[in-house]
Amino acid sequence: MKKVGVIMGSDSDLPVVKKATDMLAEYDIPFEVHVYSAHRTPEEAKDFAVNARANGFGCIIAAAGMAAHLAGAIAANTTLPVIGIPCKGAVLDGMDALLSTVMMPSGIPVATVAIDGGKNAAILAAQILAVEDAELASKLDARRKKDAEAVLAKDAGIAERI
Amino acid sequence: MKKVGVIMGSDSDLPVVKKATDMLAEYDIPFEVHVYSAHRTPEEAKDFAVNARANGFGCIIAAAGMAAHLAGAIAANTTLPVIGIPCKGAVLDGMDALLSTVMMPSGIPVATVAIDGGKNAAILAAQILAVEDAELASKLDARRKKDAEAVLAKDAGIAERI
Amino acid sequence: MKKVGVIMGSDSDLPVVKKATDMLAEYDIPFEVHVYSAHRTPEEAKDFAVNARANGFGCIIAAAGMAAHLAGAIAANTTLPVIGIPCKGAVLDGMDALLSTVMMPSGIPVATVAIDGGKNAAILAAQILAVEDAELASKLDARRKKDAEAVLAKDAGIAERI
Amino acid sequence: MKKVGVIMGSDSDLPVVKKATDMLAEYDIPFEVHVYSAHRTPEEAKDFAVNARANGFGCIIAAAGMAAHLAGAIAANTTLPVIGIPCKGAVLDGMDALLSTVMMPSGIPVATVAIDGGKNAAILAAQILAVEDAELASKLDARRKKDAEAVLAKDAGIAERI
Amino acid sequence: MKKVGVIMGSDSDLPVVKKATDMLAEYDIPFEVHVYSAHRTPEEAKDFAVNARANGFGCIIAAAGMAAHLAGAIAANTTLPVIGIPCKGAVLDGMDALLSTVMMPSGIPVATVAIDGGKNAAILAAQILAVEDAELASKLDARRKKDAEAVLAKDAGIAERI
Amino acid sequence: MKKVGVIMGSDSDLPVVKKATDMLAEYDIPFEVHVYSAHRTPEEAKDFAVNARANGFGCIIAAAGMAAHLAGAIAANTTLPVIGIPCKGAVLDGMDALLSTVMMPSGIPVATVAIDGGKNAAILAAQILAVEDAELASKLDARRKKDAEAVLAKDAGIAERI
Amino acid sequence: MKKVGVIMGSDSDLPVVKKATDMLAEYDIPFEVHVYSAHRTPEEAKDFAVNARANGFGCIIAAAGMAAHLAGAIAANTTLPVIGIPCKGAVLDGMDALLSTVMMPSGIPVATVAIDGGKNAAILAAQILAVEDAELASKLDARRKKDAEAVLAKDAGIAERI
Amino acid sequence: MKKVGVIMGSDSDLPVVKKATDMLAEYDIPFEVHVYSAHRTPEEAKDFAVNARANGFGCIIAAAGMAAHLAGAIAANTTLPVIGIPCKGAVLDGMDALLSTVMMPSGIPVATVAIDGGKNAAILAAQILAVEDAELASKLDARRKKDAEAVLAKDAGIAERI
Repeated sequence: MKKVGVIMGSDSDLPVVKKATDMLAEYDIPFEVHVYSAHRTPEEAKDFAVNARANGFGCIIAAAGMAAHLAGAIAANTTLPVIGIPCKGAVLDGMDALLSTVMMPSGIPVATVAIDGGKNAAILAAQILAVEDAELASKLDARRKKDAEAVLAKDAGIAERI
Repeated sequence: MKKVGVIMGSDSDLPVVKKATDMLAEYDIPFEVHVYSAHRTPEEAKDFAVNARANGFGCIIAAAGMAAHLAGAIAANTTLPVIGIPCKGAVLDGMDALLSTVMMPSGIPVATVAIDGGKNAAILAAQILAVEDAELASKLDARRKKDAEAVLAKDAGIAERI
Repeated sequence: MKKVGVIMGSDSDLPVVKKATDMLAEYDIPFEVHVYSAHRTPEEAKDFAVNARANGFGCIIAAAGMAAHLAGAIAANTTLPVIGIPCKGAVLDGMDALLSTVMMPSGIPVATVAIDGGKNAAILAAQILAVEDAELASKLDARRKKDAEAVLAKDAGIAERI
Repeated sequence: MKKVGVIMGSDSDLPVVKKATDMLAEYDIPFEVHVYSAHRTPEEAKDFAVNARANGFGCIIAAAGMAAHLAGAIAANTTLPVIGIPCKGAVLDGMDALLSTVMMPSGIPVATVAIDGGKNAAILAAQILAVEDAELASKLDARRKKDAEAVLAKDAGIAERI
Repeated sequence: MKKVGVIMGSDSDLPVVKKATDMLAEYDIPFEVHVYSAHRTPEEAKDFAVNARANGFGCIIAAAGMAAHLAGAIAANTTLPVIGIPCKGAVLDGMDALLSTVMMPSGIPVATVAIDGGKNAAILAAQILAVEDAELASKLDARRKKDAEAVLAKDAGIAERI
Repeated sequence: MKKVGVIMGSDSDLPVVKKATDMLAEYDIPFEVHVYSAHRTPEEAKDFAVNARANGFGCIIAAAGMAAHLAGAIAANTTLPVIGIPCKGAVLDGMDALLSTVMMPSGIPVATVAIDGGKNAAILAAQILAVEDAELASKLDARRKKDAEAVLAKDAGIAERI
Repeated sequence: MKKVGVIMGSDSDLPVVKKATDMLAEYDIPFEVHVYSAHRTPEEAKDFAVNARANGFGCIIAAAGMAAHLAGAIAANTTLPVIGIPCKGAVLDGMDALLSTVMMPSGIPVATVAIDGGKNAAILAAQILAVEDAELASKLDARRKKDAEAVLAKDAGIAERI
Repeated sequence: MKKVGVIMGSDSDLPVVKKATDMLAEYDIPFEVHVYSAHRTPEEAKDFAVNARANGFGCIIAAAGMAAHLAGAIAANTTLPVIGIPCKGAVLDGMDALLSTVMMPSGIPVATVAIDGGKNAAILAAQILAVEDAELASKLDARRKKDAEAVLAKDAGIAERI
């Protein structure tokens, strides 16, 4: 199976990224994690992106806060799908990171998920890899069913919590 | 090759969607276009999503404005990757559609692109299909190079426009 | 008397929903509570909505956060009045849920109350049921008077708190 | 049938209000239209609200822009359901009116629809009156079906417009 | 000297209002404090406003949060200057109250101060009363000088705090 | 009668300011108009403010856009009441000017009116001067009545415009 | 004198950039203009930045819209001062570009000017070069004086335009 | 070497300013710190700015919150580069200060850094002084390298933290 690259701009984004890697692990998807900053280590970020397809990656998740350029900088250097996680910073509740990640110019898309949406980034990565992988698609369907059952279990018990 | 489903919530979204389908055509990616509203034709939207994988789709693009639920409603009914295009409406400059599309709860991601980002939605779809399709990946790389050359051609002529 | 359906997208919305059910109980309005997610259990949410009028419901309250599609998804499947409560999430202070709930396209209204406005959702439900129920209308008027008296009691004691 | 009161804060709101009254007319719902300003004619606005139930109104639609207090001022003087339409003004795209209308304090709800959502305000009013009026409910269902058919007709013709 | 009316929409606004009344006391300006809600006790709020000039008030301060209609409702019922304090609520950081207070339609101004700006509301009230009261104007000038000296004292000691 | 100083930061603000001076003229309030920029002519702006009370001014209206410092800069140099009009600029719809004008720190209030609220700034100035001027207060009351009559005239004719 | 690099992300930013280059020309500051996209030609943008100091540049102006990464990408590759101009795009009035430009993480500042602030970017560049260039500083002072005189000329004629 | 002036509008901004002065100290850049309020001590702020160039300053950092006029007021009185730090206040997360600082009118730029960006303000000041100071430029490059190494060290250890 192709690997998922998981890049964070700073290790302060680890709690959000951890939700992504836990979910990838649950799906038995191989992944590689890096701390590369679009601004402090632009060369390393670029090199990772440029070589990602050749190195066996199928898609890349990039998590960053503030003027979150990481996902865009990765996307500028590969044609693999890049998933951006805008991270909440000390101010503005992640709106700066959301706009910096999602409002990409024509030609260079970033597949943006919700602010701090680590888990959904991993699920989206799994969905991308599952396009040509029926077994992984089955796992996604199974998990979806389990999630639904969890909601219905909550539903069954909600009346007595009112 | 797997097809791309392209759904718009209203035919008023057609100009944005057209940018997507033109780009899919450029990459020779087969696609199918529909007008399905998450609110006015929820059943048809759902049926399309539920059957999409079996019907040979590899991913789905959904474009909608205002309280843009379409991409989320599609994503709730398939584990294929769903790409959301938030469309600008008569007020709020698309911020309502952006938040309605991107801020999905855990479990059901939508790969959101920029407001009115029809072209990037198609490129992202192509990138997803290209994960296991080296020929399409080459086309993406070629187009990327062409885009870069277009910028550099502009650069070559900019001095005399100042 | 017709019942009020009270649906929450996740049981994390329970504190807000509890304010609604407490108020319904105060008015002796029968209600039924469910946890149905527009995204994780779309079918159950739809089924509830489709059958709500036949099942004796007079209106439905739906509470959800983030890209809050629940009220809209319910409204798409019934012509009963649907009241939406946008719930504050971990970021953006509920602005995402507010816009996702209130900016509905033509044809499918959601009667939106304030962010986390559980109590007002219930009062609005009571007002709707009271249109043809003079006794309930009287209760609403009585409660309104009591609320006013509470304000005036505060007014009477405010000078000494300065 | 009970009447719907339709109040606008200024006759500049007429284009939005007209969408509401046209829809009420389509449903054969009797209505009465007024221009009452919460600020310039507070007494008339209040008197209308205070007497609305006795005068045969079943609910009230209030449309206003800027610091849109009209719906709230009406709601403060009746326990009938009050539907607020936030109107777009010269600046801020209606965000001021939306927050002024929807963020009501506990005790006094306003059922808020989308910015400039005249048509949906009327449909919501019809839904409220239809709670105890099976014929009107049927009309709502019929219109809903017609709306869905219109979408599907668009869908049928969309392929050739790409 | 004319009195200042100080009205709050809820006694939860007291901490903000207290900053205003403390400042009024410092200037020896007579004041009267009330809890009147624009929505829960509209009649009392109106009566206060209608009679304020005759009752010896020179201006009125109104503090409220959320869809903060209080200042506007007061202003609609008097031609005395009305000072609005938008109060921060549980969500949106007071932006709802700010827009609800400041974006008044032509004809009915509210002199709006900063969110939670209790102290400045009182100073503005003092400035208004001081237009024709040289002694009060002197007090304002003296206090302004004292404030400047406090800043300069901080300036004198800042180097050693670095 | 005391004069009203009317200062604009740029003559591009003249259309907004003109609404203020027309209204002052209607009330026979003497005024003096200046173009002083807080940034380009800070000294002139300051001198005007410092001497305003001695020069017979009763209050000052300041209109500016973008990072609208003018009202604050005037207020920093006088203890007369200063009324700020935030003006809409080429971007952001006046939100920048609104926050720059209203969010003043403790000690230096600016009485802020709506974005582009020239007319209300003048009415507020008149209300301030009317605190000790019964004749002007009567004019304000008369105008208020006329405004109400204009609304009611619109109300009388609205039915046939539907 | 050191040169100013002026980079735009797209030639659609030319109108904003032209205001910058006109002002640089007025100050006889040598400059070089390029169209380099942070996303479409990341390598060229980087190379320019990496070599800018050695190539005789004293500072760099970067103009871009949407998820405006250009200034940050330049700043990541040089320790010269980088001035960012956030450009207004088709939606959001430049707020996306502003946040993407100004909210840079610790270590890599971008000196951000107003949205579409081409002229101010050039003046800031001139101010930076003038720190060690008394003649240029004199020119800046002279221009400042001229600007002030222009304001005062407007002031002299404003009374008759009212 | 020229000095850096560091001005804060209130000593409550000290934590942010301290990050700036620590960084200046690290680069051995001489600096002078002051508490001057644009509103409470406008004359002192102005005097500092007017004389800054003659007094040996090369640039000025100004930190302020709310309607943050300080940087603009300084910039209006000098042609030295002025760096503005918008500080987060009790509400609005610094958005008010950001817009008040960055949206300066043509002619008077403020080099704005991120909200609470004390460290970056100092680095930008160092970059400005380093334009003609090769030794300082080397220090900036060295620090940049050190920052990159710190990121790579985090990268080296990240795998085991997942």
